[in-house]
Amino acid sequence: MSARRSRITPEREAELHEAVLDLLREVGYEALTMDAVAARTKSSKATLYRQWGSKPELVAKALRCTQPVSLGEIDTGTLRGDFARMVAHSDDAQMAKDTALMRGLAHAVHESPELHRALRDLLVDPEINGLQAMLRRAVARGEVRPDCPALDFVPHMLIGAFIALPLIEDRSVDREFLTQFIDAVVFPALGV
Amino acid sequence: MSARRSRITPEREAELHEAVLDLLREVGYEALTMDAVAARTKSSKATLYRQWGSKPELVAKALRCTQPVSLGEIDTGTLRGDFARMVAHSDDAQMAKDTALMRGLAHAVHESPELHRALRDLLVDPEINGLQAMLRRAVARGEVRPDCPALDFVPHMLIGAFIALPLIEDRSVDREFLTQFIDAVVFPALGV
Repeated sequence: MSARRSRITPEREAELHEAVLDLLREVGYEALTMDAVAARTKSSKATLYRQWGSKPELVAKALRCTQPVSLGEIDTGTLRGDFARMVAHSDDAQMAKDTALMRGLAHAVHESPELHRALRDLLVDPEINGLQAMLRRAVARGEVRPDCPALDFVPHMLIGAFIALPLIEDRSVDREFLTQFIDAVVFPALGV
Repeated sequence: MSARRSRITPEREAELHEAVLDLLREVGYEALTMDAVAARTKSSKATLYRQWGSKPELVAKALRCTQPVSLGEIDTGTLRGDFARMVAHSDDAQMAKDTALMRGLAHAVHESPELHRALRDLLVDPEINGLQAMLRRAVARGEVRPDCPALDFVPHMLIGAFIALPLIEDRSVDREFLTQFIDAVVFPALGV
């Protein structure tokens, strides 16, 4: 922790992130301003810029805080255990809220390369890295063959399922669906 | 063919659909009007409404015409052959254009339940039905076990891959990716 970052408590940070997500749901990304965040959270714009850098970064970091656990933190000793832990940490109500939020952001991402980059750097890439570390450990333990071609496609399977389910069946992913999809598709593809 | 439908030639219909797609790319779904389509195609609005019913149906039918082949038409005698035919009919340049177009429509779909319904009825459901018929034949031939749990998730895998790849790797699906994904994920999950 640098001195710069320590000026704000974790509680205050969580409060600010929640306010940003509320504003995002209310007005959308385009209409969200740093002025509105400052007013809503009774903080100065200088503090916001010092702590978060920019609006895209603020939004990406606020979204990261909705994640119950980072995949990089999960290490149970088996791949089945790691996936079960991932599902156990998921929250059905939160996933439904996230689906609505991400749907609203999908449009903004294509309009704003800065938002695209911030979401990728702060949200997507760290999780994909965590997932790949999980898979490398499974290969090292002999659970998955090192030349298994599905190893390259696990992010596509998981992220694809999250986006495809609302389109195909008009519902958000929940723990039951995640468990069924992982058992029916991800493990067989990996030969687990 | 009913008398009503025969008033327009297939060539003229294709011309109209191409004009609708051009307008969609230029102005987006919200700003697209039946007046603009009528002006662009030098046809009367009465003809447009008689032939297509409504703006959402016109857009869905125009999009359907960009598909090189309907999955329901493919029946080579083996599941591997059916998927190979599906990939062979895909056109890399067309898939890239479709990705951009669908990205623009994703926002409109959530604003317009009528567009959502038209895309589902005219575009998504017929392809999912064609895919399911393909899988049922594979089960009947003994290529896939009837209780294989992945049978329920083939649309999620394929549609998910189409949407997840641009997000994860910043590129559109092409025939090479489709082939790799089907070989690495879909066939192993189905036990083929």
